[in-house]
Amino acid sequence: MKKIINQPTAVVDEMLDGLAYIHSDLVHRVEGFDIIARNSEKSGKVAIISGGGSGHEPAHAGFVGDGMLSAAICGAVFTSPTPDQVLQAIKEADEGAGVFMVIKNYSGDIMNFEMAQDMAEMEGLEVASVVVDDDIAVEDSLYTQGRRGVAGTIFVHKILGHAARAGKSLSEIKALADELVPQIHTVGLALSGATVPEVGKPGFVLADDEIEFGIGIHGEPGYRKEKMQPSKDLAQELVAKLKDSFEFKAGDKIGILINGMGATPLMEQYVFANDVAGILAAAGLEVVYKKLGNYMTSIDMAGISLTFVKLEREDWLEALNSPVATIAW
Amino acid sequence: MKKIINQPTAVVDEMLDGLAYIHSDLVHRVEGFDIIARNSEKSGKVAIISGGGSGHEPAHAGFVGDGMLSAAICGAVFTSPTPDQVLQAIKEADEGAGVFMVIKNYSGDIMNFEMAQDMAEMEGLEVASVVVDDDIAVEDSLYTQGRRGVAGTIFVHKILGHAARAGKSLSEIKALADELVPQIHTVGLALSGATVPEVGKPGFVLADDEIEFGIGIHGEPGYRKEKMQPSKDLAQELVAKLKDSFEFKAGDKIGILINGMGATPLMEQYVFANDVAGILAAAGLEVVYKKLGNYMTSIDMAGISLTFVKLEREDWLEALNSPVATIAW
Repeated sequence: MKKIINQPTAVVDEMLDGLAYIHSDLVHRVEGFDIIARNSEKSGKVAIISGGGSGHEPAHAGFVGDGMLSAAICGAVFTSPTPDQVLQAIKEADEGAGVFMVIKNYSGDIMNFEMAQDMAEMEGLEVASVVVDDDIAVEDSLYTQGRRGVAGTIFVHKILGHAARAGKSLSEIKALADELVPQIHTVGLALSGATVPEVGKPGFVLADDEIEFGIGIHGEPGYRKEKMQPSKDLAQELVAKLKDSFEFKAGDKIGILINGMGATPLMEQYVFANDVAGILAAAGLEVVYKKLGNYMTSIDMAGISLTFVKLEREDWLEALNSPVATIAW
Repeated sequence: MKKIINQPTAVVDEMLDGLAYIHSDLVHRVEGFDIIARNSEKSGKVAIISGGGSGHEPAHAGFVGDGMLSAAICGAVFTSPTPDQVLQAIKEADEGAGVFMVIKNYSGDIMNFEMAQDMAEMEGLEVASVVVDDDIAVEDSLYTQGRRGVAGTIFVHKILGHAARAGKSLSEIKALADELVPQIHTVGLALSGATVPEVGKPGFVLADDEIEFGIGIHGEPGYRKEKMQPSKDLAQELVAKLKDSFEFKAGDKIGILINGMGATPLMEQYVFANDVAGILAAAGLEVVYKKLGNYMTSIDMAGISLTFVKLEREDWLEALNSPVATIAW
């Protein structure tokens, strides 16, 4: 393992200090906790929080700021944050109108976020949540019952964050989240595995000419290994998978997110985007929102994911386009 | 080589189409050319343009937009754009007040940008330029006489772009550039080499426990190979090198850029940032501007660079902080 770190056990602590140092204009680290919170003044609105294991940077701390998250809880690498950390984030974020938690669908996350919710409610705080399960690759997985939560989560952050800033109530945001999450589907592929610092070697190994479709963001197995193919064939596979998962008709409006997994250069992401564009145009889908970059990574994994969000509602598109003050949106 | 591409020879063409597709709200590709230009209306101001070989994404196309570049010329991977491409960019960008070219110090770039300048002047256009040579690692290199131009170039884009938007004349911008460039120093290190698609294998290979200080963004040799070290020792080396290159005294104001080389996860960049922060605080330098991320990459190279800009002038800091409408700033 060759990584720019000090002690593998200190990576998250030092990373959060480094992040808070670099972006001190936008966020701060909550003292004594692995929580990144926004600097802006509280204004009596619903607070949206999220989090999970570290190793997915810029998720989730990169989405803390006005118009998106109020706070992000950062667990150990690929490990759920503990309930006391989530509880503290709820308390820090609360502005008196309740706290809404965006949880990715991993058993550990759900258990710990829900335990924190129980504790917060016992202290008189109002908390609600949604579980994001956008990864259509597989049902059930190493750490998940049902579908995994992956890159599409950032669309949830953005659209709920906009609603919160607009003054929507906790129950309105819950209803919005429940309507939104099923409209977001993602599928990815890997060229190489990620190395967790404390493990010191890749979680899985692919041959020099091999890829895996449907891999998870913690190296969970996908649905098929194949020989490496041209970008346009990879794009065809992922788009077909996503099209099958929705009931699309020509003229339907969608937003897309092309997400790099950490070690995939922008060069490759844009080549892939060009292939996706051609396939979607041929299918008659109207792409009304587009985003590309490293948003939900898997440390140093090489790979890419493609997310579709159905955007029939004009206000969701408006929410995606509204300006925010975050590190990474 | 395992890359998400189609034909290696088509990578730049397809990448630019993909980029223009994804970011159609901000930029467009100039038809028939490898030029990315901003969408915004012309308003009679000086146009700043830049470019060079591809493979450094998001540089330079990611910095096209209101408040930064008017256009970026994208050569073949690690290869200077041709004079006819640069000439076309000059013509496209010109708003009647002259065009200013930001050139990184590579012999091929200088030759071709200057040839384009001559051609443009023969057609009656006003053109001026600056050569950025911020990389203090080595004097002269594979493709360079003097020092190489690397990540610090984006500070030049930003500060000159701000001046152009503010309505400064071509000669004022030339004077500003000549004052600014010597105040920007960069030094980097590599953990692995980059693979140019048309070559198919890494430009250099480091052992599993080896790094190289002072490497260039095209794999040009650095100044020393060593065994891998903790982040804080790497930070110590790069900061010391930069401190030696300026005449600093306690209380001096600087801006810093921590730049990922393409395959280096944000996790490592933030750990490194935390180490840099500690060293700079101990040295009594006042860090008034901070930036971190993948800005001037070397395709899929793992590594990092550190840039200092002396910020004694309040208006330079203001320029760095002013909002822009670009893909990647």
